Amino acid sequence: MANFGGHAIPGSFFLLYGVWLAIKHTLQHHWRKGQAAGRQKTPAFLKKMEYVEGGFEMFAAFVGIMVEQFVVDGPHARLIDRSSGSWVKLMNWQHSTMYLFFGIAGFTIVVTTRTKSAHLGIDRLSVSLALFVEGFLFHYHLHSRPMLDTHVHTLLLVPVFAGAANAMLQVFLRDNIVLELLLAGLFFLQGSWFFQIGCVLYPLSGPQWDLMLHDNVMFTTMCFCWHLAIALFIISITSLLVCFLVKRVSGNGRNVEIGMRNTANSSQKALLDETDEE
Amino acid sequence: MANFGGHAIPGSFFLLYGVWLAIKHTLQHHWRKGQAAGRQKTPAFLKKMEYVEGGFEMFAAFVGIMVEQFVVDGPHARLIDRSSGSWVKLMNWQHSTMYLFFGIAGFTIVVTTRTKSAHLGIDRLSVSLALFVEGFLFHYHLHSRPMLDTHVHTLLLVPVFAGAANAMLQVFLRDNIVLELLLAGLFFLQGSWFFQIGCVLYPLSGPQWDLMLHDNVMFTTMCFCWHLAIALFIISITSLLVCFLVKRVSGNGRNVEIGMRNTANSSQKALLDETDEE
Amino acid sequence: MANFGGHAIPGSFFLLYGVWLAIKHTLQHHWRKGQAAGRQKTPAFLKKMEYVEGGFEMFAAFVGIMVEQFVVDGPHARLIDRSSGSWVKLMNWQHSTMYLFFGIAGFTIVVTTRTKSAHLGIDRLSVSLALFVEGFLFHYHLHSRPMLDTHVHTLLLVPVFAGAANAMLQVFLRDNIVLELLLAGLFFLQGSWFFQIGCVLYPLSGPQWDLMLHDNVMFTTMCFCWHLAIALFIISITSLLVCFLVKRVSGNGRNVEIGMRNTANSSQKALLDETDEE
Amino acid sequence: MANFGGHAIPGSFFLLYGVWLAIKHTLQHHWRKGQAAGRQKTPAFLKKMEYVEGGFEMFAAFVGIMVEQFVVDGPHARLIDRSSGSWVKLMNWQHSTMYLFFGIAGFTIVVTTRTKSAHLGIDRLSVSLALFVEGFLFHYHLHSRPMLDTHVHTLLLVPVFAGAANAMLQVFLRDNIVLELLLAGLFFLQGSWFFQIGCVLYPLSGPQWDLMLHDNVMFTTMCFCWHLAIALFIISITSLLVCFLVKRVSGNGRNVEIGMRNTANSSQKALLDETDEE
Repeated sequence: MANFGGHAIPGSFFLLYGVWLAIKHTLQHHWRKGQAAGRQKTPAFLKKMEYVEGGFEMFAAFVGIMVEQFVVDGPHARLIDRSSGSWVKLMNWQHSTMYLFFGIAGFTIVVTTRTKSAHLGIDRLSVSLALFVEGFLFHYHLHSRPMLDTHVHTLLLVPVFAGAANAMLQVFLRDNIVLELLLAGLFFLQGSWFFQIGCVLYPLSGPQWDLMLHDNVMFTTMCFCWHLAIALFIISITSLLVCFLVKRVSGNGRNVEIGMRNTANSSQKALLDETDEE
Repeated sequence: MANFGGHAIPGSFFLLYGVWLAIKHTLQHHWRKGQAAGRQKTPAFLKKMEYVEGGFEMFAAFVGIMVEQFVVDGPHARLIDRSSGSWVKLMNWQHSTMYLFFGIAGFTIVVTTRTKSAHLGIDRLSVSLALFVEGFLFHYHLHSRPMLDTHVHTLLLVPVFAGAANAMLQVFLRDNIVLELLLAGLFFLQGSWFFQIGCVLYPLSGPQWDLMLHDNVMFTTMCFCWHLAIALFIISITSLLVCFLVKRVSGNGRNVEIGMRNTANSSQKALLDETDEE
Repeated sequence: MANFGGHAIPGSFFLLYGVWLAIKHTLQHHWRKGQAAGRQKTPAFLKKMEYVEGGFEMFAAFVGIMVEQFVVDGPHARLIDRSSGSWVKLMNWQHSTMYLFFGIAGFTIVVTTRTKSAHLGIDRLSVSLALFVEGFLFHYHLHSRPMLDTHVHTLLLVPVFAGAANAMLQVFLRDNIVLELLLAGLFFLQGSWFFQIGCVLYPLSGPQWDLMLHDNVMFTTMCFCWHLAIALFIISITSLLVCFLVKRVSGNGRNVEIGMRNTANSSQKALLDETDEE
Repeated sequence: MANFGGHAIPGSFFLLYGVWLAIKHTLQHHWRKGQAAGRQKTPAFLKKMEYVEGGFEMFAAFVGIMVEQFVVDGPHARLIDRSSGSWVKLMNWQHSTMYLFFGIAGFTIVVTTRTKSAHLGIDRLSVSLALFVEGFLFHYHLHSRPMLDTHVHTLLLVPVFAGAANAMLQVFLRDNIVLELLLAGLFFLQGSWFFQIGCVLYPLSGPQWDLMLHDNVMFTTMCFCWHLAIALFIISITSLLVCFLVKRVSGNGRNVEIGMRNTANSSQKALLDETDEE
C-alpha cells in the first residue's frame, strides 16, 4: 500500500460509498415522508438497494482480503515465519482485518433486510464496529513515523471515529436524515482525505514534501477543513439532485413509487457513469 | 492579528452574537409558549430575525476573508510562493477558513428558514461544524508558544468545543431553551475571553505579563471562571429583560404578536445602540 | 487550607449534602409516585426544603468567601500587590471562586422554586457548572506537587466531574431517581475523599506518608473504591430509611401529605443530630 | 495471579457470563415480543434466572475474596505489616476489591428482582460500577511494566470501559436488545482476551514472547480485533439458537410459556455441558 495507488483505491471506494449513502438515505427519507399511514412495508427497490450495498461490501471485502494475502509480496495466508520466528507482513494482515469487518457489515445489512426477526439497529452497529476497528488499527499503526506522516493519518482518524460514533448513535436514533447525511459526508471526507494522504506522501509530480516541516502540518490541518467543506457541499448537492429528480419523475407519472423506482435506476446509472469517469 | 485589535474585533462579534442569540431564543420561547395549538407557522418577524442573522454572518464572513487576504501584509490569494517553495501567510489562510465555515453556517440558516423541504437541524449542525473547525484549527495553532500564551488559547477552546457539542445536541433536542441560552452564554464567554487574551498578550497599558510565570497561569484559569460567571449573568439579565418587555408590550396592546414585533424592533435598536457604544 | 481541618470542613459539608440530597430526592420520588393525577402542585414542605437548601448554599458560600478573604493570612480582597507587582494569595482567591459558583447554584435553586416562569433545568445546570468550575480549578491546581499528592487530588476529580456530567444529564432527564441518588452518592464520595486526603497529607497521628512511594499510590486507588462502596451503602440506607419512615407515618395518619411533612421534619432533625455528633 | 491459570479462571467466568447474558436477554426479548398486552408480570422462570445470576455472582465474589485473602502467600486479611510499616500484598487486596463490586452487583440484581419498590435501573448501574471499578484499578495497575504487558492490559480496558458505558446507557434505555447483546459480546470479548493475555505473558508451550518487540504490539492489536469478531459470532449464534429452540418448543406445545420454560432448562443444561467440556 506504500504508494499513491494504495491510497487512491480505498479513497475511491469511500468517496463513492459516501455518494451512495446520500442517494439511498434521501430516497428512503422521501419515501418515509410520502408514505400513507397504512402502508408500512419498505418498497422493493429500496430493499434491492440494501441488497446491492451489502452484497457489494461482502464482495469487495473478499476481493480485498484475497489481494492483500496473495499479491506477490504478500503473506500468502502465513502468519508466522517458522524459520525466523517472526510475524509475516503484519501490515497486509491488518488491512485484511479491516476488510473483514466491512464484510461483516455487508453481511449484516443483507441479513437485517432479508429477515424480519433480525433486530433493527444491528446493521448500523456493524458499520460502527467496522469503522471503530479501522480507526483502532490505524491508531496503533502510527508508531515512530515522521511528523507529517503521523499527522495526516491522525487527521484521518477524525472522520473514522466520528463516523463510528455517528453510526452507533443511529442504532438508537433511527431514520434521522441529518445524522444519515452526516455519516455520508464523513465517508466522503474519509475518501477524499485518503487521496490527499496519497498526494502528500507519494506526490505524483512536483517536489517531495518535507515531512518534518511544521508549516506543512499547519497547511494539512487547514486543508482537512477544506475537504470537510467540499464533502458537505457534494453530499448536499447529491441529496438535492435526488430530491429534485424524484419530485419531477413522480410528478409526471402521478405515481410516487414507480417514479422513485425509475429515479433510482437513473441515479444508479449516473453513479456508474461517475465511477467510469474517475 | 498579533495585536490587541486583532483580538478585540472577533471578541466584539462573539459578545454581540451571544446577546443576539439570547434575545432571539427568548422571543422564540415566548412565542412557542403563547401560541395557540392551531397555529403552527412561525411569525414573520421571527423569520426576519433568522434572515438578518444568516445574512449578517455571510456578509461578515465575506468581509473577514477579503480583509485577511488583501491587507497589506496578507497573502493576496496566493497559497504557494513559487520562488521559495514555501506556504504564504498560513495564519491568514487559517483565519479565512474559519470565516468560511461561519459563512456556511449563515447560508444554512437562511436556507432552512426559507425552504420547507430543508431538514430541520441542519442549521444547528452547521453552527456546530463552524465551532468545531474553529477549535480544531486553534488546537493545532498552539505549537511551541510560551506557556501563558498556550494556556489562554487552550482555555479559549473550552467555550468553543463546549459550544460545538451544545449545538450538535440541539440537532436532536430542538427548542430546549436551557440549551439555547447556554449556547448564547458560551458565545458571550468566547467573546469576552478574546478580549482577555488581547489584554494578556498585548496589554494596552501597564507592564508586560511574564509569559513563563506559573502564578499567571493560575490567575488566568481563575479569571476564566469569573468570565463564565459574568457571561451567565449578562445572558440571564438579557433574557429576563426581553421577557419583561414582551409581557408589558403585549399586555398593553392586547395583541401578543404585534407586541412582540414592536419589542423585537426596539431590542434590535437597543442592540445596534450597544454596538455603536462599544 | 494546608492542614487537616482545611480538608475536613469542606468534606463534612459534602458528606451532609449527599445525605440531604438522598433524603430530598427520596421524598420527592415518593410524592411523585403517590400523587393523584389531578394534583400537580409541589407540596409546601418540598418547596420549603428547596428554599432551605438554596438559602443554606448561599449563606455558606458567603461565609466561605469572607473567611477565605479575611483570615489573618488572607488576601483581604486585594488581588495585586502593587509594591512587588505579584498576585496576592491566589489559593484563597481560587477557593473564593469555587464558593461563588456554589452560591450561584443556591441562588438559582431558590429562583426556580420561587417563580414559575424560570426555566426548568436551570437549577441542575447551575449545580453542574459549580462542580465543573471546582474540578476545572483543581485540575490546574496540581502543577508540580509530589506524586501521591497529585494522585489523591486527581482521584478527587472523578466524583467532581462525574457529578458535573450527572447534573448536566439531569437537565434533560429530570426526575430520574437513579440519577438523583447517584449524584447524592457522588457528593458523599467527594466528602469522604476530602477526609481521606486530609488523613494522607496531614495525618493526625502515626507516621507521615511517603509521598513518592508507588505502593501508596496503589493503596489510595483501591481505598477510593472502598469509599465508593461506602458512599453507595450510606446513600442506599438513607433512602431506604426515609421510604420506611414515610410509609409508616403516612400509613398511621391515613394522610400521605401530613405524614410526609412530619417525616420531613423528623428527618431534618435527625440530620441536625447527625451534624452535632460529627 | 501471575501465571496462566490466574488469567484462565476469570477468563472462563467472563466467557460463560457473556453466553449466559445472551441466552437470558434473548429469552426476555422473546417473551416481551410475545406477551399479551394485558399481562405485565415477568414469568417465574425469567425471575428464577435473575436469582441464579445474582446468587452465583455473590457466591463467586465471596469465594474469590476468600481465596485471594487466604491462599498460602496471601495477605490473610492483614492490610499493614506493622514490623516494616509497608502494605501487605496490595495485588490481592485489589483483586478482592474488584470481586466485592461484582458481589454488590449480584446482590443488587437479587434485590431489584425481589422487591417491587426497588428502582428500575439500579441493577444495571451496579454492573456498570463493577466494570468501572475493574477498569479503574487495572488502569493504575500498569505502572512501569514492559511494553507488551502494558499494551495487552490496555486493550483489556476497551471491553471493560465499553461495557461500563453500555451498562450505564441501559439504565436509561432499558430493554434494548441490541445494547443487551452488545454487553454480552463485550463480556465474552473480555473473557477471551483474558485467555489471550495468559497465552502471551505465560505461554504454555513454545518460546517466550519478546515483551519489547513492536511487531508483537502490532500483532496483539490485530488479534484483539479477531477476538471481537469471534465474540460477535458466538453471541449471535447463541442468540439465534435460543430463538430457534424457543420457537420450536413453543410451536409444538402451543404454549409459549411452558415452551420457554423447557427451553430455558435445556439451554441451561447445554450451558452446563459446555462448561464441562471446557
